[in-house]
Amino acid sequence: MRLSTVRIAGRTTWGVVDQDSFRDVGTVLAGRYADLKAAIAAGLAGVAEAAASVTATPLADIEWLPVVPNPDKILCVGLNYEMHRQETGRSEVENPTIFARYANSQTGHLAPIVRPKVSTDLDYEGELAIIIGKPGRYISREDALSHVAGYAIYNDGSVRDFQRHTHQFTPGKNFPDTGAFGPWMMTPDELGPLPDLRIQTRLNGQVVQDATFGQMIFDIARQIEYCSSFTRLEAGDVIASGTPGGVGAKRNPPLWMKPGDVVEVEIDRLGILSNPIVDEVH
Amino acid sequence: MRLSTVRIAGRTTWGVVDQDSFRDVGTVLAGRYADLKAAIAAGLAGVAEAAASVTATPLADIEWLPVVPNPDKILCVGLNYEMHRQETGRSEVENPTIFARYANSQTGHLAPIVRPKVSTDLDYEGELAIIIGKPGRYISREDALSHVAGYAIYNDGSVRDFQRHTHQFTPGKNFPDTGAFGPWMMTPDELGPLPDLRIQTRLNGQVVQDATFGQMIFDIARQIEYCSSFTRLEAGDVIASGTPGGVGAKRNPPLWMKPGDVVEVEIDRLGILSNPIVDEVH
Repeated sequence: MRLSTVRIAGRTTWGVVDQDSFRDVGTVLAGRYADLKAAIAAGLAGVAEAAASVTATPLADIEWLPVVPNPDKILCVGLNYEMHRQETGRSEVENPTIFARYANSQTGHLAPIVRPKVSTDLDYEGELAIIIGKPGRYISREDALSHVAGYAIYNDGSVRDFQRHTHQFTPGKNFPDTGAFGPWMMTPDELGPLPDLRIQTRLNGQVVQDATFGQMIFDIARQIEYCSSFTRLEAGDVIASGTPGGVGAKRNPPLWMKPGDVVEVEIDRLGILSNPIVDEVH
Repeated sequence: MRLSTVRIAGRTTWGVVDQDSFRDVGTVLAGRYADLKAAIAAGLAGVAEAAASVTATPLADIEWLPVVPNPDKILCVGLNYEMHRQETGRSEVENPTIFARYANSQTGHLAPIVRPKVSTDLDYEGELAIIIGKPGRYISREDALSHVAGYAIYNDGSVRDFQRHTHQFTPGKNFPDTGAFGPWMMTPDELGPLPDLRIQTRLNGQVVQDATFGQMIFDIARQIEYCSSFTRLEAGDVIASGTPGGVGAKRNPPLWMKPGDVVEVEIDRLGILSNPIVDEVH
């Protein structure tokens, strides 16, 4: 099952995405679930049945919003592919590197990623997003995957000069409209085994990142185990699982995203997340 | 005016704190404001009038919760006093060091700070918390203080080994029940000028941190200006403005907080935030 949060004719709702249409489950189940996050918290109970009963809306008539627009937490894993670790010159560590993004920095599929007026160092980071279903603390590695509601594509857009103002990444990872999250989340049963899946980032059609999930330094289960050791994970929480090598900042000369560009992140079987770059309106 | 979020007989509300009693404004204005954050967003309109009309509850009958239990963002400033910067061995930087705490890590006045079962390296960080009133982006230094709804005391409790697992502080700053925030926020008119105010942290009565706000490297206005350059600040957002020198981790031997201890942070005119330390229930 593929699930999205969207806007139709100015109204925000959520539902199931079929091959070429959207089923507005949010409206049918409005009395039961306030939003997709609430439906995830309930294990998506009743969602498939409701989807079967509603009229389809053509995908051309919907506006994509971040899959979960209001997660309590977006925990981002840094330096989780060996090639990216090496290009940044960081040493090996025993635990995942975690930094935080706030929900107000997100944007949806086909919506702009905004280059802020205070910087030109806007970079892409194609990633697999893990969406938590079952809440928990001190989740074991063995149980970890049972806490996953689904997977989606994330572009952890980064403003590199702000990221490097100090040793803490937070400022460079929290600009409005830089964290693209979409088009949908896919439930694990439909996505299947992860390690062989390929993730590829393309800027204006040119491949700039290309890896498989088997190349992650800390796998999905370890990320969930570690994050839940210091915070309680809640339904709808997002773990952005790190980006492969090839970021623009480490190229010579650096490759920054600029207005008019289109950045795409593709994950096998999951889909393509595409965003145009625009300048902030001054 | 002093404002708090509290629990009375198991019910969460908010209101005004007098010399020795609490005025339950939240219940009177329930139709108007969902919580203290909503009242802050409305510039506290009608709050003083409502407080004057309600019966007083003795402070002994209330349970203190985090002043704002549900801020969208808690932005923490690191290394903002010269003595603390020097004890950590970090170099000077031109911009504030910012890391993020999530709302689910907070606790209230007199409630326990919890030492997690996975660590003994639990440290204090007494701080001044800035609570944002008027939202904004790209707030100028000159306008910054007009965006402040009030000030409170924060103990940015830190789990140092997790903070140092990698170069990103996030894990060590987000354990449940480690960010103490209280007892109340005081509106700027009542607190008066900040630079000469003293902040002091005491562990079991022993002074372990002692500074004045005039010693901050980046003052309140600069913190607001910088944070609003990368994110839109919202009503109820918290900026924890950094801790003075004297943290337990940099003592020889290190001074960790342990079950049975009591940690207090006092700020002149603002009050005392006191928390017992307990072990996590296994």
